[in-house]
Amino acid sequence: MLTLYITPGTCSRASHIALAESGLPYAVSRISFADGGQRSESYLKINPKGRVPALVTDKGVLTETVALLAYIASLVPEKHLAPLADPFLFAKMQAFNAYLASTVHINHAHGRRGARWADDETSHADMIRKVPQTMRDAFVLIENGFLEGPYVLGETYSVADAYLFVMAGWLESDHVDIAEFPRVHAHYRMMLERPAVQRALAEEKEAA
Amino acid sequence: MLTLYITPGTCSRASHIALAESGLPYAVSRISFADGGQRSESYLKINPKGRVPALVTDKGVLTETVALLAYIASLVPEKHLAPLADPFLFAKMQAFNAYLASTVHINHAHGRRGARWADDETSHADMIRKVPQTMRDAFVLIENGFLEGPYVLGETYSVADAYLFVMAGWLESDHVDIAEFPRVHAHYRMMLERPAVQRALAEEKEAA
Repeated sequence: MLTLYITPGTCSRASHIALAESGLPYAVSRISFADGGQRSESYLKINPKGRVPALVTDKGVLTETVALLAYIASLVPEKHLAPLADPFLFAKMQAFNAYLASTVHINHAHGRRGARWADDETSHADMIRKVPQTMRDAFVLIENGFLEGPYVLGETYSVADAYLFVMAGWLESDHVDIAEFPRVHAHYRMMLERPAVQRALAEEKEAA
Repeated sequence: MLTLYITPGTCSRASHIALAESGLPYAVSRISFADGGQRSESYLKINPKGRVPALVTDKGVLTETVALLAYIASLVPEKHLAPLADPFLFAKMQAFNAYLASTVHINHAHGRRGARWADDETSHADMIRKVPQTMRDAFVLIENGFLEGPYVLGETYSVADAYLFVMAGWLESDHVDIAEFPRVHAHYRMMLERPAVQRALAEEKEAA
């Protein structure tokens, strides 16, 4: 059995969607940011980083969206959620996902978690001011090349699409209009129609 | 032929070491930060992100250390540079590498690239002050668990070791004493003895 630790609205949504796409049985367990659940003693035993997502498997715990998405895809090769048999294409997918994790998510995080990297409130305010610019700059690159279209890898759906969907869903709260990016916008609307996306969103609500 | 775009001392060193371990023929091409080479028109055609590393292959360009390390390992499965046949272990390795990319490297970057996320010099100074704390916090987790020892994945060398070596090599400039972390320190010294590490360091000097 797989148990995914999630916080609704966070990047855990990408792995959640991938699980829903996989058809595998899974459970979700909610960790509340507001209650400090990420730093609770019991959760730190599962993930010492104090972050979501964490995936509990019968072999141990896995963390980091980039790793989880590829792992979930590898559990169900017949579903073709990643180009597992083509090392170059697989690396392209991992590069896309790593960009979202190490650049896009980090840009976004400066709008709400600035205390990770600086102590003064004036610094946090400065960071918050810059988020629209850094998110826009990243989505310009995604719009103009990284997103091949209609899916991230072209004609074939992959777990990278779930991750892009989550990041694109953050643009509004980062004061960037998704309509500036027609291809990203079309991708976002297409993703909203997928049953696995609808299931994950519904399960986030149930868990809340 | 593989060509790796590097900047000496940066995270491109990890992929460089992996290439040296692979035994494959490769070339390195130096991009100078000081000369703004990462933002030159010619380099942006190779990597629109304006960052290193980038690996030019006969199938196209790949970026992001997390993707490159796994890709290089997949080119030479007989060298066992990654647990390619075990999806759970492979995911563990990817999770380790993703933590270095999305947390450790980002912590370090706030000491020198604060302008990515804030505009005021006072914010940059605040970020610089916090780097020793964030790097130490990350290495406490690495020392106490993520590094299984003697190698990242236990008894078997993998590309994750090259990446950890590079991050541990940044501690001194981040005002953290590597001797605080005996297992990381032993790992660092062991890595310095590897011919592939020595080759990559020598090639960085030649390219400079």
